[in-house]
Amino acid sequence: MPLLSEKGRKMPASPIRKLVPYAEAAKARGIEVIHLNIGQPDIKSPPQALQAVRDADIEVLEYGRSEGSDRYRQKLAEYYGRHEIQISKEDILVTTGGSEALAFVLGCIADPGDEIIIPEPFYANYNGFATANGVTVKPVVSTLAANFALPPIDAFESCITPQTRAILLCNPGNPTGYLYTAEEVAKLAELVRKHNLFLVADEVYREFAYDGKQHHSILSQPNLDEHAIVVDSVSKRYSMCGARIGCIISRNKEVMQAALRFAQARLAPPTLAMIASEAALDTPQSYFDDVIQEYSERRNLLLAELESIPDVRVAHPQGAFYCIVELPLSNAEHFAQWLLESFELDGSTVMVAPAAGFYASPGLGLRQIRIAYVLEQDKLRQAVRILKEALKIYPDNAH
Amino acid sequence: MPLLSEKGRKMPASPIRKLVPYAEAAKARGIEVIHLNIGQPDIKSPPQALQAVRDADIEVLEYGRSEGSDRYRQKLAEYYGRHEIQISKEDILVTTGGSEALAFVLGCIADPGDEIIIPEPFYANYNGFATANGVTVKPVVSTLAANFALPPIDAFESCITPQTRAILLCNPGNPTGYLYTAEEVAKLAELVRKHNLFLVADEVYREFAYDGKQHHSILSQPNLDEHAIVVDSVSKRYSMCGARIGCIISRNKEVMQAALRFAQARLAPPTLAMIASEAALDTPQSYFDDVIQEYSERRNLLLAELESIPDVRVAHPQGAFYCIVELPLSNAEHFAQWLLESFELDGSTVMVAPAAGFYASPGLGLRQIRIAYVLEQDKLRQAVRILKEALKIYPDNAH
Ligand SMILES: Cc1ncc(COP(=O)(O)O)c(C=O)c1O
Ligand SMILES: Cc1ncc(COP(=O)(O)O)c(C=O)c1O
Repeated sequence: MPLLSEKGRKMPASPIRKLVPYAEAAKARGIEVIHLNIGQPDIKSPPQALQAVRDADIEVLEYGRSEGSDRYRQKLAEYYGRHEIQISKEDILVTTGGSEALAFVLGCIADPGDEIIIPEPFYANYNGFATANGVTVKPVVSTLAANFALPPIDAFESCITPQTRAILLCNPGNPTGYLYTAEEVAKLAELVRKHNLFLVADEVYREFAYDGKQHHSILSQPNLDEHAIVVDSVSKRYSMCGARIGCIISRNKEVMQAALRFAQARLAPPTLAMIASEAALDTPQSYFDDVIQEYSERRNLLLAELESIPDVRVAHPQGAFYCIVELPLSNAEHFAQWLLESFELDGSTVMVAPAAGFYASPGLGLRQIRIAYVLEQDKLRQAVRILKEALKIYPDNAH
Repeated sequence: MPLLSEKGRKMPASPIRKLVPYAEAAKARGIEVIHLNIGQPDIKSPPQALQAVRDADIEVLEYGRSEGSDRYRQKLAEYYGRHEIQISKEDILVTTGGSEALAFVLGCIADPGDEIIIPEPFYANYNGFATANGVTVKPVVSTLAANFALPPIDAFESCITPQTRAILLCNPGNPTGYLYTAEEVAKLAELVRKHNLFLVADEVYREFAYDGKQHHSILSQPNLDEHAIVVDSVSKRYSMCGARIGCIISRNKEVMQAALRFAQARLAPPTLAMIASEAALDTPQSYFDDVIQEYSERRNLLLAELESIPDVRVAHPQGAFYCIVELPLSNAEHFAQWLLESFELDGSTVMVAPAAGFYASPGLGLRQIRIAYVLEQDKLRQAVRILKEALKIYPDNAH
């Protein structure tokens, strides 16, 4: 039998999916499983985005341009302009989700054996894209005690080797919900300038900032044009995860030229989804105001309820829609599985994401879970009640 | 300024796109450019496929499953069953176009430094996927004189080294239009079995077989389950290139498991396009009969017209919708550019793809062009008339 490639064998399984069979078995036993484990919002997609697809007068569903249509890129540039980011459509390449944007960016900036520095915990699929490119992730640990703020800049600097090509930041963070301050972003900008590295920012949650706080894009940093590469996506912003439209934004012409070649090899992004995404750009500000209002209420409720459980520690996220929770037990993955296999409260249980999979350093996050607050408040309340009762009887045998 | 990756710098530009600025300049001068250069059919997409998208009752455009929906995979398995390929939905992974399928397959089977053997001329984007994966393409030359039939199997065998991981076949071929015989496919199957390699077949043109000839899938070869990996796509079959739906098919469980991990890292294929693709599977056979009839008439017309030009040699394709043509001149790329820059007949000119870009061996195909017969017959007739007149006055200064 022919051998798989080394990277084919090494590609990591998603830390969340391991539990899926247990969730399916629970459902098969008639138990309702409340999903706190995935970032799939329940918010409605903007109706005019879906309507634009229905109204599209298409007879031949043709290839679009590899870089995305001029019209969509132009409207996107205007969107960023409204958010105080001055870019032109030439600085934008439309991709199949933020995922493809991440894959292309890694391909453009790193060869096998190169290193990328990422504060941990981080979005687990960065591991997949790194493995696919033979790139090593060098984690810099951020802590729940510090609310997952940027670790001291020295911690980044001491990770830099001749193989280092970039620092990758997720802002606001998944899984941390941390929203980086202007000072933190400026410090990173200074560091990448000094060491001549790329600064890649995954800003797919850019609209989700709470408490009146502002999101600080790396694209607004002075003297960073050659270093800054942003990954963005319509998935979360418009609750259109299934569309699969994202983009790469950079003023570095060489990066954009290389990214275009990756894009040309795969021909084009999905046309129907780009039509929806273009129409989504006309979404009125009131939609976002409502969504932000809803998410921040959910977050407040979640934090209040979780903090009422003895010995539970909770990060205070100000962005995205995730929250890391530390539980009074030794192995959160075992607990998560036990919730699905052996627990129920009035016929329901919850599925959470064990947080260890978001850390690259072995042994970190073992007692933590990530909760996505993408459900309505009654469900969230019910979910925390289930966690609370479960913790009372969970047999922690120090797994 | 930070450095791009080596592969970012090496990513090849598409051989077709180099001419795009010249085509745009011609259009700006008011000249009609007839596109024989790209495989974008003018055939209408099946109406029920587009209707299914209009009718879809979606409020939240959610992530689908990474491997594609169960329903679509089940219906796809039935489609292959009707084409005498017995597979189950577990053997199918839905991808974002055949392009993503190719990228995932290369990732699963080859590491940097590994080699893939491909008969040339071949689909130029194989170079892009190979470069992105650090994989070397080893070409085995097929010739216009032999109508691009499979080269002697010894030619393949003598290319095999310890680094060889697979033979990649495009059947029917782009750019050759060659449809491999049952014997040729069987010979390759035997060779990969003997040397324990993968046999990857890009069968995206599988429905386009003319003259009553049959397409022979590698999935129908005996004792090849562990070796055979097929790449397929709805792009050409249903003239839905903009949908971006394809798939990987293999009975090798390890390959499918690794491919699933690549798929999970990028989350999901585009939902709207998958809805269209599922509905497209109900396209009646009469649609294909009409399309095949139309393409074979176009091919007949194209060949007859081309062969009426002195000193022009034409391959006789029996599949796909491409044809390689050898011209009585020294540099087809220069000729193609000259057509756009310096020639017109009654206000029109043609854009063709220089074939050298489809060869990996330097110096081959310099006098050849690829023509895609994806236009209606009157346009094709006009296009060949333009070529004929152009050849009469083209100043071949042995570039
Ligand atoms: C931090 C982060 N980046 C990127 C993505 C990729 O999203 P998509 O490919 O749907 O744009 C996600 C999805 O969950 C994410 O959380
Ligand atoms: C031989 C071949 N393979 C694969 C593809 C990729 O097509 P898609 O990604 O649209 O499925 C094409 C497109 O032209 C092709 O000609």
